[in-house]
Amino acid sequence: MNARPRTVDEIDTPAVLIDLDRALANIARAQAHADAAEVKLRPHIKTHKLPFFARKQVEAGAVGITCQKIGEAEVMADAGLVDIFLPYNILGRQKLARLKALHDRVTLSVTADSATTLAGLAETFADKRRPLKVLIECDTGGGRCGVQDAEEALALARQIAGAQGLAFGGLMTYPAAGHPAEAEERLVTIRDRLAGDGLACEIVTSGGTPDMWRNPDRRIVTEYRPGTYIYMDRYQVGKGATAYHDCALTVLATVVSHPTPTRAILDSGSKALSSDTLGLPDHGELVGVPGARVTALSEEHAKVELSGDGRLKIGERVRVLPDHACVVTNLFDEVHLISGERVVDILPVAARGRMG
Amino acid sequence: MNARPRTVDEIDTPAVLIDLDRALANIARAQAHADAAEVKLRPHIKTHKLPFFARKQVEAGAVGITCQKIGEAEVMADAGLVDIFLPYNILGRQKLARLKALHDRVTLSVTADSATTLAGLAETFADKRRPLKVLIECDTGGGRCGVQDAEEALALARQIAGAQGLAFGGLMTYPAAGHPAEAEERLVTIRDRLAGDGLACEIVTSGGTPDMWRNPDRRIVTEYRPGTYIYMDRYQVGKGATAYHDCALTVLATVVSHPTPTRAILDSGSKALSSDTLGLPDHGELVGVPGARVTALSEEHAKVELSGDGRLKIGERVRVLPDHACVVTNLFDEVHLISGERVVDILPVAARGRMG
Repeated sequence: MNARPRTVDEIDTPAVLIDLDRALANIARAQAHADAAEVKLRPHIKTHKLPFFARKQVEAGAVGITCQKIGEAEVMADAGLVDIFLPYNILGRQKLARLKALHDRVTLSVTADSATTLAGLAETFADKRRPLKVLIECDTGGGRCGVQDAEEALALARQIAGAQGLAFGGLMTYPAAGHPAEAEERLVTIRDRLAGDGLACEIVTSGGTPDMWRNPDRRIVTEYRPGTYIYMDRYQVGKGATAYHDCALTVLATVVSHPTPTRAILDSGSKALSSDTLGLPDHGELVGVPGARVTALSEEHAKVELSGDGRLKIGERVRVLPDHACVVTNLFDEVHLISGERVVDILPVAARGRMG
Repeated sequence: MNARPRTVDEIDTPAVLIDLDRALANIARAQAHADAAEVKLRPHIKTHKLPFFARKQVEAGAVGITCQKIGEAEVMADAGLVDIFLPYNILGRQKLARLKALHDRVTLSVTADSATTLAGLAETFADKRRPLKVLIECDTGGGRCGVQDAEEALALARQIAGAQGLAFGGLMTYPAAGHPAEAEERLVTIRDRLAGDGLACEIVTSGGTPDMWRNPDRRIVTEYRPGTYIYMDRYQVGKGATAYHDCALTVLATVVSHPTPTRAILDSGSKALSSDTLGLPDHGELVGVPGARVTALSEEHAKVELSGDGRLKIGERVRVLPDHACVVTNLFDEVHLISGERVVDILPVAARGRMG
């Protein structure tokens, strides 16, 4: 309906802005770090959900990509990505059929943490000459999915090794943020237990942007799956993983109301910023407006408290640095790539909203 | 890709289920209550974002609908809805042009809480023979948008009355939940102040499902804009606004992992349930599984703690009653209307993700 915006000034709000130069620099920085540490990088596309950036990550040196849902992997396969890791328990007739179809098109690997998941995979891929690589998910303190100890891992590894259409690929974990060393110790124990049984782990993969810059105590992790590092966000700044001037994603918003001197309202509510704070006390902060924080959200309104020198006026356009970039991406049908104030491109978020 | 499901058993997860019989009963119950209270009902479509249910609400007796964004209103106008209230400060060249185009198609009314918003509306609609009806938003304790006192309201009402293309429509508020009487008192003060200046309020509109069933102390509200009442949710049950067996929206999910006897993981993460708890301690509960609550979310995983007699097994499909129904709707491209176990229809969430 409206003419395509050429500059940020012409973009209607709320909108997602991606600073292309910063995103590309973040990709390069992470790849250089992984190369120096001799760890393969397999970025998680959940943060951007864009074939454009998945290709940039592979061109920079990533061995492939990580997707969390089959629907995301299908979009990426359609866009020409050829090596996809899906660290998820795939269950159910419909998803297994889609997984099988996807395996015919790309180099695919998945995870499992139960005999039930493995039974479904084994049955689905029984007739395959090219086996599906399956890694065992290990709970290393994160308290989400994953086997609880080495004996459980051993039983599953044997089940994989004994299944005609499956191949044992190694171990996967998503460590508790801030506890990578604990995760590595647990992975070493499990890897060594399996090795004692003749089951070698080709891949041991970990993830999480906050801990990606450290030099591991133990040589255990062979692949790393950071997601947020491409955009970074307020949470990552707080964790010391990046600096404000490297954050690539902001939400462009308009001040629609200013009911009191210290309260302003933006048109970017939870439908634009999400309610996910990752535990931070606020929902975001305004770039270049000192002391302006988003202290409450309803669906279409963000409440800003002005506690510092920053001033706003009704109709003014501001940029909000959100607490968590990945969840913002999923809320928008498109994002605006910018370089300085220039709009470089508008990309549909192709893998947005892929539920299954 | 898959055959259209005929029963709930055939729906892949995660998916939104809408119990059609319950939703229609909720519509009828609210309309009967409004009729008895002699208050006009103007439901907020944010909860369902579906032309199908907007039509059902009008057929049941609603005087029109409420939308929060121009994009939502455009979808509803395209679907044949003819009377739309947009309680939002519309600012900026692009949105004002769209508002003007929409005004040519339907009976439209909006709100404003500042001279800046009114100046933009006045300029846009200056050449209109059919004026745009504008209500003044009043902060009655909710602490979001709205004028702070009667003198502010009076200044804006005069500005509206003096603008050629605008017509003063009355007052609008979104009260703090649980404090409708306080809101009514403030509205009475403002209405009487304006009346003393010769400015009559044709409409005084309030909203919010939790307080919709009470009988107001004062005869001030002429229209009511509840949203959640059509689906209801765990928050509304907690507020006493409904019962579990009247909740129409659930999220169908699969147990994908069960790492410990008391911890199970579902495939409905924050991307399906949202992180919005409306202040509740958990993210939802499992229907028919005693003591099973969703205690943590990441994007694609829901962590369930089993603290009661309920038991789950991997691969089992469950229904999650979310804390907040409206925000779930916005995350899904389609919803499944069901009656018992039968799938009646699959509807695209036509007004989902309308940002501006």
